[in-house]
Amino acid sequence: MSSRIEKDSMGTIEVPSDHYWGAQTQRSVQNFDIGRPTFVWGRPMIKALGVLKKSAAQANADLGELPHDIADLIVQAADEVIEGKLDAEFPLVVFQTGSGTQSNMNSNEVISNRAIEIAGGELGSKTPVHPNDHVNRGQSSNDTFPTAMHIAVVTQINEKLYPDVTKLRDTLAAKAEAYKDVVMVGRTHLQDATPVTLGQVISGWVAQIDFALEGIRYADSRARELAIGGTAVGTGLNAHPEFGKLTAKKISEQTGIEFVQAPNLFAALSAHDALVQVSGELRVLADALMKIANDVRWYASGPRNGIGELLIPENEPGSSIMPGKVNPTQCEATTMVATKVFGNDATVGFAGSQGNFQLNVFKPVMAWCCLESIQLLGDACVSFNDHCAVGIEPNPVKIKANLDANLMQVTALNRHIGYDKASTIAKNAHHKGLTLRESALETGFLTAEEFDKWVVPVDMTHPSAASE
Amino acid sequence: MSSRIEKDSMGTIEVPSDHYWGAQTQRSVQNFDIGRPTFVWGRPMIKALGVLKKSAAQANADLGELPHDIADLIVQAADEVIEGKLDAEFPLVVFQTGSGTQSNMNSNEVISNRAIEIAGGELGSKTPVHPNDHVNRGQSSNDTFPTAMHIAVVTQINEKLYPDVTKLRDTLAAKAEAYKDVVMVGRTHLQDATPVTLGQVISGWVAQIDFALEGIRYADSRARELAIGGTAVGTGLNAHPEFGKLTAKKISEQTGIEFVQAPNLFAALSAHDALVQVSGELRVLADALMKIANDVRWYASGPRNGIGELLIPENEPGSSIMPGKVNPTQCEATTMVATKVFGNDATVGFAGSQGNFQLNVFKPVMAWCCLESIQLLGDACVSFNDHCAVGIEPNPVKIKANLDANLMQVTALNRHIGYDKASTIAKNAHHKGLTLRESALETGFLTAEEFDKWVVPVDMTHPSAASE
Amino acid sequence: MSSRIEKDSMGTIEVPSDHYWGAQTQRSVQNFDIGRPTFVWGRPMIKALGVLKKSAAQANADLGELPHDIADLIVQAADEVIEGKLDAEFPLVVFQTGSGTQSNMNSNEVISNRAIEIAGGELGSKTPVHPNDHVNRGQSSNDTFPTAMHIAVVTQINEKLYPDVTKLRDTLAAKAEAYKDVVMVGRTHLQDATPVTLGQVISGWVAQIDFALEGIRYADSRARELAIGGTAVGTGLNAHPEFGKLTAKKISEQTGIEFVQAPNLFAALSAHDALVQVSGELRVLADALMKIANDVRWYASGPRNGIGELLIPENEPGSSIMPGKVNPTQCEATTMVATKVFGNDATVGFAGSQGNFQLNVFKPVMAWCCLESIQLLGDACVSFNDHCAVGIEPNPVKIKANLDANLMQVTALNRHIGYDKASTIAKNAHHKGLTLRESALETGFLTAEEFDKWVVPVDMTHPSAASE
Amino acid sequence: MSSRIEKDSMGTIEVPSDHYWGAQTQRSVQNFDIGRPTFVWGRPMIKALGVLKKSAAQANADLGELPHDIADLIVQAADEVIEGKLDAEFPLVVFQTGSGTQSNMNSNEVISNRAIEIAGGELGSKTPVHPNDHVNRGQSSNDTFPTAMHIAVVTQINEKLYPDVTKLRDTLAAKAEAYKDVVMVGRTHLQDATPVTLGQVISGWVAQIDFALEGIRYADSRARELAIGGTAVGTGLNAHPEFGKLTAKKISEQTGIEFVQAPNLFAALSAHDALVQVSGELRVLADALMKIANDVRWYASGPRNGIGELLIPENEPGSSIMPGKVNPTQCEATTMVATKVFGNDATVGFAGSQGNFQLNVFKPVMAWCCLESIQLLGDACVSFNDHCAVGIEPNPVKIKANLDANLMQVTALNRHIGYDKASTIAKNAHHKGLTLRESALETGFLTAEEFDKWVVPVDMTHPSAASE
Repeated sequence: MSSRIEKDSMGTIEVPSDHYWGAQTQRSVQNFDIGRPTFVWGRPMIKALGVLKKSAAQANADLGELPHDIADLIVQAADEVIEGKLDAEFPLVVFQTGSGTQSNMNSNEVISNRAIEIAGGELGSKTPVHPNDHVNRGQSSNDTFPTAMHIAVVTQINEKLYPDVTKLRDTLAAKAEAYKDVVMVGRTHLQDATPVTLGQVISGWVAQIDFALEGIRYADSRARELAIGGTAVGTGLNAHPEFGKLTAKKISEQTGIEFVQAPNLFAALSAHDALVQVSGELRVLADALMKIANDVRWYASGPRNGIGELLIPENEPGSSIMPGKVNPTQCEATTMVATKVFGNDATVGFAGSQGNFQLNVFKPVMAWCCLESIQLLGDACVSFNDHCAVGIEPNPVKIKANLDANLMQVTALNRHIGYDKASTIAKNAHHKGLTLRESALETGFLTAEEFDKWVVPVDMTHPSAASE
Repeated sequence: MSSRIEKDSMGTIEVPSDHYWGAQTQRSVQNFDIGRPTFVWGRPMIKALGVLKKSAAQANADLGELPHDIADLIVQAADEVIEGKLDAEFPLVVFQTGSGTQSNMNSNEVISNRAIEIAGGELGSKTPVHPNDHVNRGQSSNDTFPTAMHIAVVTQINEKLYPDVTKLRDTLAAKAEAYKDVVMVGRTHLQDATPVTLGQVISGWVAQIDFALEGIRYADSRARELAIGGTAVGTGLNAHPEFGKLTAKKISEQTGIEFVQAPNLFAALSAHDALVQVSGELRVLADALMKIANDVRWYASGPRNGIGELLIPENEPGSSIMPGKVNPTQCEATTMVATKVFGNDATVGFAGSQGNFQLNVFKPVMAWCCLESIQLLGDACVSFNDHCAVGIEPNPVKIKANLDANLMQVTALNRHIGYDKASTIAKNAHHKGLTLRESALETGFLTAEEFDKWVVPVDMTHPSAASE
Repeated sequence: MSSRIEKDSMGTIEVPSDHYWGAQTQRSVQNFDIGRPTFVWGRPMIKALGVLKKSAAQANADLGELPHDIADLIVQAADEVIEGKLDAEFPLVVFQTGSGTQSNMNSNEVISNRAIEIAGGELGSKTPVHPNDHVNRGQSSNDTFPTAMHIAVVTQINEKLYPDVTKLRDTLAAKAEAYKDVVMVGRTHLQDATPVTLGQVISGWVAQIDFALEGIRYADSRARELAIGGTAVGTGLNAHPEFGKLTAKKISEQTGIEFVQAPNLFAALSAHDALVQVSGELRVLADALMKIANDVRWYASGPRNGIGELLIPENEPGSSIMPGKVNPTQCEATTMVATKVFGNDATVGFAGSQGNFQLNVFKPVMAWCCLESIQLLGDACVSFNDHCAVGIEPNPVKIKANLDANLMQVTALNRHIGYDKASTIAKNAHHKGLTLRESALETGFLTAEEFDKWVVPVDMTHPSAASE
Repeated sequence: MSSRIEKDSMGTIEVPSDHYWGAQTQRSVQNFDIGRPTFVWGRPMIKALGVLKKSAAQANADLGELPHDIADLIVQAADEVIEGKLDAEFPLVVFQTGSGTQSNMNSNEVISNRAIEIAGGELGSKTPVHPNDHVNRGQSSNDTFPTAMHIAVVTQINEKLYPDVTKLRDTLAAKAEAYKDVVMVGRTHLQDATPVTLGQVISGWVAQIDFALEGIRYADSRARELAIGGTAVGTGLNAHPEFGKLTAKKISEQTGIEFVQAPNLFAALSAHDALVQVSGELRVLADALMKIANDVRWYASGPRNGIGELLIPENEPGSSIMPGKVNPTQCEATTMVATKVFGNDATVGFAGSQGNFQLNVFKPVMAWCCLESIQLLGDACVSFNDHCAVGIEPNPVKIKANLDANLMQVTALNRHIGYDKASTIAKNAHHKGLTLRESALETGFLTAEEFDKWVVPVDMTHPSAASE
């Protein structure tokens, strides 16, 4: 493998000649062999660095801090980073310096060398585009890396999480509407209770998702505040006073998502509470998915000896011998995702508390965990939607049988024959294993016609009817 | 100890005659001896149950569901619960039925018996005020207990957390202003960096608290949605159709905090995502306090062999032999509180995911953990404020000595003598152990006058000056 | 309220005259009003401090570091602390100085003053028994508090947790034996599967508890290593070289549990990994209880529309209208305890990572969380045992009906009629809603006699039969 | 891309013709697009499946359950899986069915087809080696997947974690010995305290690692109990009664690590408490590394305005302008790893509690998190060792200056001139900013000769000297 010599303030180092990265990236490759290959940065973070470097160059050019031709070269190279053409040039892992300096320098070096190449210069020459003086102009890792973290997280939330979750949400909302008249046994404490409609059950799931999405939208709005312009310690030393605000504006134009400079840059460098908040709101979604997926698999349990009131798609052999055994595998994948999001959230919350003075040096792991949770939640929603939720159907035979067997409908008799007689009917049914109707007729407290007129489960699912 | 006989659907049971509680409370006392005495419900939850029962009685009376004289008796007894006169009548612990049924019944029984007493009736007679038919009218534990949880949490946030946290926030904001001109060494990666002002440092702390408070305000707004009106499974069976909305209105009038009925009652009974969200936002505040308290104790470390740039009040003997040893005990209590809030948050997030069908039966532990975190955070803020933050002062001697020793100010020379010469000065200082000024003069690159004119730390703390 | 004057190195302070505590306790009362009354130390920690102070006095006397008459006075007063006579003299909360210094001094002051009183001296005079020079002789908070933490945790594990958990374990082991011949449907993925016996099911629960107990025994063995003898920083400065070892021996004699001095005292002061380990092993038990309690409530779900294969005691009204509705409230309390133990564990793990240099200053919160988890787990096991486990019974009607309905027994036919015909029988049964027997006879592949001979669920529960 | 047809009980499906996997793997690829590419199984799990399938084939052959020629073909193909030649044939992700069935089938299909190829047969023909009847003989996913989980985790602990952690441990142990005579300031509460030696400090770190390793060894010993032989529900249906024990023996021979069959197979399928325990013990190590890495970076803080008593290797530019600024990047990577291990542990603990009846369906995510934590901890220890720990050196100038400045040595004067005079010397030094020696001489309480004879910091680091 051929190599070239790159140089930084520590001296020279050999770098593979078929790569654009420079000395500092190479040192990190050699010094941080932790968690490979799992923890190499993926698309969202690389793209965010590209967006940032492009926007910073444009802002610097507008402010007279960078010649326009240099800025144009940076923009061209950064566009390739944004488009994904240079992903192989980002070999670093999460577990590096806690400020993300090495990944920031990775982007500076790659963009510089690619820009030099476009300009016909020599790789590693730092001419005409210098990684520090030009690509990193007015910036420090301490403000660029958290800026890129926020760009990546917010972009993934908007471009991946919202559509993925909404897909599931809309499927369920349609199911809630479709099955609004399917009356079934309610259950509390896992015990039989008064009736509900399947539409009501599913409406509760939709409401949970809507609640979670609104919380994420709130956290999203706060994460749009960027550290850019703070440079090394938050004072903005070496940056043009307008640089942070203008770069945020350029980032907004590039992404189509409105970002602003954070109101306090000291906090923006030394704490990442906005990511802790994002992670916390993602956990609410995980909580909701856990509840929904659990409900689906319990309702679909059986086929003979469970609850069996819902049917779900059979996607793969549940058992080679047992027809009708449909394992709720999409539910299982989804609930496993939920536990993973919980774990990521624990990491983010812990790491977020560990800043000292002017810097929190747990930045990369916080970014990684948030991005991983977003991807997993989005992927799980699509998978659960496509391979399970769209195919959820009531099992009318089982639903009716259960409802008929349920004794809780006795409640409806209270106002006609009084609590004591109603109670006698229920107890009689329980002890003899009768249906409520059978028991009622056996006691002689009412006629079959009266029973059928008064005990109408659907009426018990609507408050207006119930309390008339 | 004398006793009387109380009765419920399971039969009769002896109850201490000097207490108002009834059969179901007594059964819970006997069946759930877990975590005593720590986990007996405290004021906020008891008060919330009182508020709820009073409001429900008023709403039922307005809707014609309860005679006005009965409602008035309930209101009188509930007012005593609200005022704290009957706290000793609430002997139950958190670890009971997961719906909180027993605590709901505890409030029904106590209010019923006290109302009976006011009316001159016989305790346990359920006449003229019946615990179920009157006090619990139109209600089920499944909607009342989560309603009381939300009332308690929101009330504690508003009446305790906001003022307690704001007290600390305002102290720090005043300190940020007072010390805005105190220039000191910045630190990143725990390493010396370019200067900041003490005011800037503290402004970062204030910004973290403000961020956390805003997040809590958001979660607070969502937690004001109440489950009331859902009764047993969310359908509102047995409640007047207007009961939920009207009760929420009465609760708002009683507390001065605007509550509403939740938009989806199925979700409101089977999930408590609003509390998961509250807990997540409380964790952001814990994160912020951890950072702040850590900064304070590190800045105050020493007195001789630490950083020593801040002085904090000496509240107790740090050591019987070592004058000047001031242990940062308030910081320690605060960071311990932060770890406790993290633990509570883990419990809430886990418990919140475990609902099944129409009910989540982890209600009491979720309420307890949220309330405990609120109290601890509030108490810690007041304690840290009163016994530490108000007395934080810069140690000018140490700050100046450190700033003079710092080599990072060399950055200011770059634009006057160029990067290479500046670097030489810094390296020379580092190797020989000189101050930057000594080294600069030794190299002959500039005069003493020039050094004193160009190397002005305060200028490095303002972006306008730095980038002019 | 009358008061007397007590004095410490910061000066004088008024102390309530009806209490034994002194100046440093009083300062802590005034400076740390956090989490009252919940977080005031309870019996286990107070007793542990008594045990420690008594043992230290005996060791010092043996080593000639303390006159025997002084030591005797200390022992007398410490015995009262051990017996619980002076619990009201320990007013401090967890959230104090992170070294627990104030609670150590609380014990020194109370024992000193009580000893003085016994000797006929004047409270606060520090004569003839000085809180520092005598009661705290050869000690520092930095080694005594973690020593007391370990004594408290290990003692509670041995005296409370083991018997409480074992009680439940033995009940379940007896049930496993009692129901070893009850054949029932197995379930995987919540779906019907091949048969198991109820005894096998319960044996799995017992195995989980045994596994957890063994893990706790391991952690218990490591927690018996005490920090005593390390004094302020681990070097043992001011303590007799034999003091730590001898005090550990005295503690062993006092408690009947074998304690030793930790092999490395620097680690013993600056880290509390043994408690992190204890907490982690307690979490394994919480995991086991969560699984067991969940299984019980699902098996007992119904009565009509759930699984209903187990019957559990009815301890309180599940519903005033629905006979047979038995809410699994003991399961709910137990699973809530599990989530609380998880939260405590998160706190302990986090706090345990935060030591610096020669001290970890999260001692009190770590001790509290471990002790709380131990109590809750013990209490929950007893409550679950007494009010639920002892009364668990199979519901033979439901078990048989489910087993008859189950199609998985078809597996037994494979070796007699081949997989294809067996599969046809199962599919036919599934599509037509037949029992396996009905379907088998309808296909004509085998006779009723053959079916009854070959399809014997109990045979499928034993590997020897199954693979013959 | 060309394809062939594979078949399972659901019917036929197209599979890429250049891959060995079959129908069920292909269905999982299509149904579970979650978390790619991060969460595709890596070497340890693939190898473990190979080890298991090889050992099972050998056991079945020995027991007469499988013809020797078929077993030999399976062994050949499984050896290729073990060696890593077929890693590209394992395309599935963690978030699949919660029993890991699809990964079990993936191994069955790949081994079957590769064995068929070796035998000259046709891929997909299932002849002469059938994926279910032969490769999976006597097995179910429900026992094979947890068996593979344990093999993978235990193997990684033994082959990776122990050597990696021991490397760091031994480096530190050597440093502890090398610097046993370097006396330096002790610090408690971040405040100056009595002296310690650097050797003592580092010995505390070594003791923490040793403690953690012993805990992991304990958990390792418990994780060597395998579920194999339980088949679908724990009864061992369809497996030879000796199959589990014999397969465990074969696995031991293959790996050189002693595995046994678990004593209770019902627990082994429905709970994975051994992995919860492993994860808990890994967290103890994470705790220890967090403390150690934090200590190192604080001791190395500065260079001018921190503690600065340790020097650590400079591996990359800390700053392009600031010579001597050495960012503690290896410490930062290590502490980030610690937070990730905490998060993984939260996932494992949560998932471990969620089993139902005869199966826990969170198997894959539990295995993944344990394996990830093991890799990260191992990698971090090697990286921290090679790039930081080996180069840790005391900074004698700073250590001496700090020690000279420290006032805590006054303690040594107590027994010569009494507490009061000693205290006066210390206070005088503190107020006037003198060294202890200067202050002592100024007071006239002792001579210079006496001071130098009595105040000898090294004597304060040994208990024997201190208490003589």
